[in-house]
Amino acid sequence: MEVDILIKNAYIVTMNSESSIYEFGTLAILGNTIVAIGKSEDIEYFTSSNEIDAMGSLVMPGLINAHTHAAMSIYKGMADDLNLHEWLHKYIFPAEAKFCNADTVSTGSQLAIMEMIRFGTTCFADMYYFQEKTAEICFLLGMRAVLGQAILDFPAPDFKSSNDALLHTEMLMQKYNNSQLVTIVPGPHSPYTCNKETLIQSRQLANKYNVPLHIHISETMLEYEESIKNNEKTPIEYCDDLDLFNGKTIAAHCVYINDNDRSILKNKKVGVVNNAISNMKLCSGVAPVYFMKEAGVTVGIGTDGVVSNNTLDIFEEMKTVAMVHKLNTNDPTALNAKTVVEMATIENAKILGLDSQIGSLEVGKKADLILINLNQPHLIPLYNIYSHIVYAIKGGDVDTVIINGEIVMLNKTVQYSEALDVAIDAQLIANEVKEYMETVNAS
Amino acid sequence: MEVDILIKNAYIVTMNSESSIYEFGTLAILGNTIVAIGKSEDIEYFTSSNEIDAMGSLVMPGLINAHTHAAMSIYKGMADDLNLHEWLHKYIFPAEAKFCNADTVSTGSQLAIMEMIRFGTTCFADMYYFQEKTAEICFLLGMRAVLGQAILDFPAPDFKSSNDALLHTEMLMQKYNNSQLVTIVPGPHSPYTCNKETLIQSRQLANKYNVPLHIHISETMLEYEESIKNNEKTPIEYCDDLDLFNGKTIAAHCVYINDNDRSILKNKKVGVVNNAISNMKLCSGVAPVYFMKEAGVTVGIGTDGVVSNNTLDIFEEMKTVAMVHKLNTNDPTALNAKTVVEMATIENAKILGLDSQIGSLEVGKKADLILINLNQPHLIPLYNIYSHIVYAIKGGDVDTVIINGEIVMLNKTVQYSEALDVAIDAQLIANEVKEYMETVNAS
Repeated sequence: MEVDILIKNAYIVTMNSESSIYEFGTLAILGNTIVAIGKSEDIEYFTSSNEIDAMGSLVMPGLINAHTHAAMSIYKGMADDLNLHEWLHKYIFPAEAKFCNADTVSTGSQLAIMEMIRFGTTCFADMYYFQEKTAEICFLLGMRAVLGQAILDFPAPDFKSSNDALLHTEMLMQKYNNSQLVTIVPGPHSPYTCNKETLIQSRQLANKYNVPLHIHISETMLEYEESIKNNEKTPIEYCDDLDLFNGKTIAAHCVYINDNDRSILKNKKVGVVNNAISNMKLCSGVAPVYFMKEAGVTVGIGTDGVVSNNTLDIFEEMKTVAMVHKLNTNDPTALNAKTVVEMATIENAKILGLDSQIGSLEVGKKADLILINLNQPHLIPLYNIYSHIVYAIKGGDVDTVIINGEIVMLNKTVQYSEALDVAIDAQLIANEVKEYMETVNAS
Repeated sequence: MEVDILIKNAYIVTMNSESSIYEFGTLAILGNTIVAIGKSEDIEYFTSSNEIDAMGSLVMPGLINAHTHAAMSIYKGMADDLNLHEWLHKYIFPAEAKFCNADTVSTGSQLAIMEMIRFGTTCFADMYYFQEKTAEICFLLGMRAVLGQAILDFPAPDFKSSNDALLHTEMLMQKYNNSQLVTIVPGPHSPYTCNKETLIQSRQLANKYNVPLHIHISETMLEYEESIKNNEKTPIEYCDDLDLFNGKTIAAHCVYINDNDRSILKNKKVGVVNNAISNMKLCSGVAPVYFMKEAGVTVGIGTDGVVSNNTLDIFEEMKTVAMVHKLNTNDPTALNAKTVVEMATIENAKILGLDSQIGSLEVGKKADLILINLNQPHLIPLYNIYSHIVYAIKGGDVDTVIINGEIVMLNKTVQYSEALDVAIDAQLIANEVKEYMETVNAS
């Protein structure tokens, strides 16, 4: 049988429910779908004009970034090593108020999506403004994404009211309803920036189209304490009382969580996204990931935006997740390598509501996968492939990326990006931002 | 004037005492020495048949890894996510007892040094056995190193007694006394594995040749508590009472440190090496790096060996250092990006006793430097070069590495490595180790 892409002799890590690994494996892709996977000796009945001999290479599911703000890439390195209040009020908010528009979102998302592909991410969950621009870039570069259109109760760069944002969100949801790559979802920013009505309407909209809702919850101690003070409830309890978790939820952060919160997150099947680097860099704290997982909560991994990271590299994030939660529990066996790889693949797919399509390499799933040459000094020798993936492989080691059956990066070169002359645009924007920040913060 | 290498139009970060940066800079190398550095427009009187147009590239001092065990690379990923006791007694010690010999040290050091060069490290401080083999590899690949010959009071893979180890160390020190690249130093393993006499003799030997002594101190809570119990002194106080700090000292870890220890470290000018990833991964704890630095202690950065990391990437280590000490102090302004770059360059050079030669780009210093293309999506735009170095640049971004005036990596290809067929050797060793470990730990 002739297939579109045939990968042979690869070291295949499937991340399926049996944790199957094929040390000399074959994977066949027809259209956007995996049609065969297994030991090379068992799969000999396929041919392809596009055959990849992957001897010495790891083939694994593409990584998923379950929480980011792609378009913020234009602010990369603008404001580091600052107190949260200064960072937010002197830099992030003023910069966005002045510079966030359809054009800068397009530029920022180009940078971000090229970076994500370069480092082996094949799907991301976003929350930001002007998502129609980010969607365009996804189509251009062949990226899969769940794009949360930001919804706030105060004037945002794209819409002056939550009502307008909700209407626009539904329009985008309809527009991209049949898209292979892009899912638009409501992104109510947080329980403290959206009122009850906005939160409830966002949930109704998500459920109408059977997609997740993407929200930040309980990121900082301040948010947690203010919620107790104002609502006599934790942020999680407050949301639960509004029935906000009655459907799929991508809940970013969840750093401050009590026992009852944990039960709610588990019982309502909320998908929690840990952003370990961002939480460390801003001193938000360490989310109780190990304890949430022990309690049966689904927990995944995200990078957050570059302004608090400053990169979109899920390999780096996996290593940090494995380390910081060991430190936090004082248990070096906590979050072992395989568990962390699950979080960045199949668990993240569950959180995005896409686990029937992606997150593992299985017949019938979409062909979202990456190839990595293991024959490099820093990856020699090989004892345990999961240890290598979490602790030794770097994002930059990814050679080839396939999304939805399309080769979007080949031999470290992102395809379809020739037309984008993003570097100069981005630096010009940055120069303006820098000058403006200096003026604003001097006065 | 004709020079050997002329780098033009580079974005040069010098790390000199004035923190000079030349956005369009020229750097001239004659022999192994930097003979000119400054704005390109000010330096027009040099020519070279080896001219590098570095437009769009960062040029900075090569990174220094101030504590590692290079040869352990053959055990990369052998034993992760384990309790310290199990890790050490069921894996590391048995593996070394059975497999550590001159050949495996040679293989491991080849892997390690190729990896370090690949990720922009131009000098490292090592502690291990059979240092004559690691020295050979340094010469072969053009790497600079301060090699601590391990000295212990119990039988080690190379020597049965500390006396034999000390004699061998002095022989190696004499042999390499005039080497441009390699300095041999005594490496008494720790205050709990060496008796007083061994520690004192190691110090005398170091001072005789005016080189540092390389030792582990106060890595774990257990070590700290045992020292108090057995000696009524902290490990630092115990060493100080032996006058062990009377000379240059590379002190790895120093995780458990009281106020008096901090004063000792400052007053005796002990160079402390933080190994943030290793300390997190093994749950050793978080060294009080911020507080030591505030007290005036010189603190640098190391990766430790791959068995507790599992990589030798100082870029990754810098980002982790910046993050974990923010978290530990609950202060996002702690250890800002520039401070962390200083730690990995000029501060590390001081700790190794080499700051008159390396650690910054200045006329008269040795030409140890790296080039990195900044024109990549994840490094665009540029606001702050120090933020980029710590938070966004990856080891794998390093394109070209110059050590002692020699180009040892060009366009991501490590030179002089063609002769090394290390991959197969390393995997064969690993297969034996794995089989042996399974037998040993099954019984």
